[in-house]
Amino acid sequence: MNEQILSSDNKILKRIFNLDTNAFADGAVAVRTKEMIGLACSMVLRFDDCIKYHLGKCHSEGLTDEEIFEVFSIATLVGGTIVIPHLRKATEYWNSLKLMDQNAK
Amino acid sequence: MNEQILSSDNKILKRIFNLDTNAFADGAVAVRTKEMIGLACSMVLRFDDCIKYHLGKCHSEGLTDEEIFEVFSIATLVGGTIVIPHLRKATEYWNSLKLMDQNAK
Amino acid sequence: MNEQILSSDNKILKRIFNLDTNAFADGAVAVRTKEMIGLACSMVLRFDDCIKYHLGKCHSEGLTDEEIFEVFSIATLVGGTIVIPHLRKATEYWNSLKLMDQNAK
Amino acid sequence: MNEQILSSDNKILKRIFNLDTNAFADGAVAVRTKEMIGLACSMVLRFDDCIKYHLGKCHSEGLTDEEIFEVFSIATLVGGTIVIPHLRKATEYWNSLKLMDQNAK
Amino acid sequence: MNEQILSSDNKILKRIFNLDTNAFADGAVAVRTKEMIGLACSMVLRFDDCIKYHLGKCHSEGLTDEEIFEVFSIATLVGGTIVIPHLRKATEYWNSLKLMDQNAK
Amino acid sequence: MNEQILSSDNKILKRIFNLDTNAFADGAVAVRTKEMIGLACSMVLRFDDCIKYHLGKCHSEGLTDEEIFEVFSIATLVGGTIVIPHLRKATEYWNSLKLMDQNAK
Repeated sequence: MNEQILSSDNKILKRIFNLDTNAFADGAVAVRTKEMIGLACSMVLRFDDCIKYHLGKCHSEGLTDEEIFEVFSIATLVGGTIVIPHLRKATEYWNSLKLMDQNAK
Repeated sequence: MNEQILSSDNKILKRIFNLDTNAFADGAVAVRTKEMIGLACSMVLRFDDCIKYHLGKCHSEGLTDEEIFEVFSIATLVGGTIVIPHLRKATEYWNSLKLMDQNAK
Repeated sequence: MNEQILSSDNKILKRIFNLDTNAFADGAVAVRTKEMIGLACSMVLRFDDCIKYHLGKCHSEGLTDEEIFEVFSIATLVGGTIVIPHLRKATEYWNSLKLMDQNAK
Repeated sequence: MNEQILSSDNKILKRIFNLDTNAFADGAVAVRTKEMIGLACSMVLRFDDCIKYHLGKCHSEGLTDEEIFEVFSIATLVGGTIVIPHLRKATEYWNSLKLMDQNAK
Repeated sequence: MNEQILSSDNKILKRIFNLDTNAFADGAVAVRTKEMIGLACSMVLRFDDCIKYHLGKCHSEGLTDEEIFEVFSIATLVGGTIVIPHLRKATEYWNSLKLMDQNAK
Repeated sequence: MNEQILSSDNKILKRIFNLDTNAFADGAVAVRTKEMIGLACSMVLRFDDCIKYHLGKCHSEGLTDEEIFEVFSIATLVGGTIVIPHLRKATEYWNSLKLMDQNAK
């Protein structure tokens, strides 16, 4: 789908996609921390697609269960109980990511 | 004002206040990282009062300009240009915090 | 200011204003309950102007402190700690409404 | 899924779940009214999962069609026409709850 | 589903539905422009159902790819990268609308 | 304040500011239409600072009262009555812009 958007030849959209890559790259703040920030922002803005995206990145960065659930708890507290159904899906997806690891071994 | 809320003797509210303190305490994720998360969440939810609160904490945690502006850039990118006026106020407040430091020396 | 909006002679806006009056009028659901609903919605949508408006109505309907703080606690729990600064202003305004009553006696 | 979240042994999340139960329990404000408040908040925050949850509770509390549609109308008016697709799903779910009742007889 | 809502005989909801038709009708601002506005608002409020509805209308109004992607880019910039997954679905739906046209020829 | 942000030498923020200028420039969609879109988006996202900014641009583009109030009515209908206090401030600001014109003659 990104190809279809990029093939539209709209400069603004291309640059936004480009910025997104740059903003989450390693810098003064580590990728690991940035992905926790991205995860929490996606949770308070309540959007499953972005939550899954950042959970995948957090998994690649080797975040532990304890770390993930502390981020989950901040996001649920700040964003309110309206976040809970997203928290359920996030927990399910996080567990599936860990399961895939175990199966790959 | 917190006193007035707490004097209302409403248990739910008292516990929420208590949870807020616990969620941002040191744990598997460091206070420093948690405050960056809190700052970014407040920016995408566009609320100056909470932005200031977390900027104060980030300042106490010794965050550098480079770190703060990387958090600002993620929040503005994720949250959109609607965040920009809040970014302006956040920058102004961050600079005032640094100035107070210099004056205290 | 409403006069300026109404003098614009825009039918849609006039009808929205009219609907607003009707929706909160007495019906199958009592005014008292509707105003608690309006208050909670304004809090989770985080807007001080509307919170004050519905607090005024709740005061006229004779809501007790216990009732108001139960509505506050549901709204803060559902909407998250991002609601807390609005909760502080709401508590302050509610207390000022009660004080005005005492002074009027 | 709640089990997975609770098994994470994260205190903040456990307490938020606990608070959620307490906040909607009978108190100065009746359960019936609290569920109407929860329903309206879920609608203006536009989240089908929570709307369904509170509709189920409203059904258990014996709310009438007239009452439900008055809550729907306040939420749609306050939240705007962006709420309408959620209103459609809510109406469909409400009707299915009533149908299950009739079939159970 | 609209029939079920309208059959509820709730005046407020009927009038909101009616207003919706009127607000997007031809006036000082052309339907074509109003549909671009409706599309952009649905994108920043991040709701796929309403995005699809206004994309259908934009298609009937004969909007070009260039125009649609300029509206997409404003909405994504104002609303932030949290809008991107909605942008993907919008692009997919827009392409399907164009394909249906070609097949109809 | 923009100077302070730009002097931070954060590339992401600089590019977002740059994109903002480009996205609202004349293109397949006219500036006039883009500013109506920007105004409506700012209203449904309920942010006075951005509403004022786009009202200023709409004024420079020579929008009539009828046009502005049709945009206002779409935004208030889509965004709900929670938008009304912003509508009041927008109407007041629009009138002040017209008054400045008359005084300048």
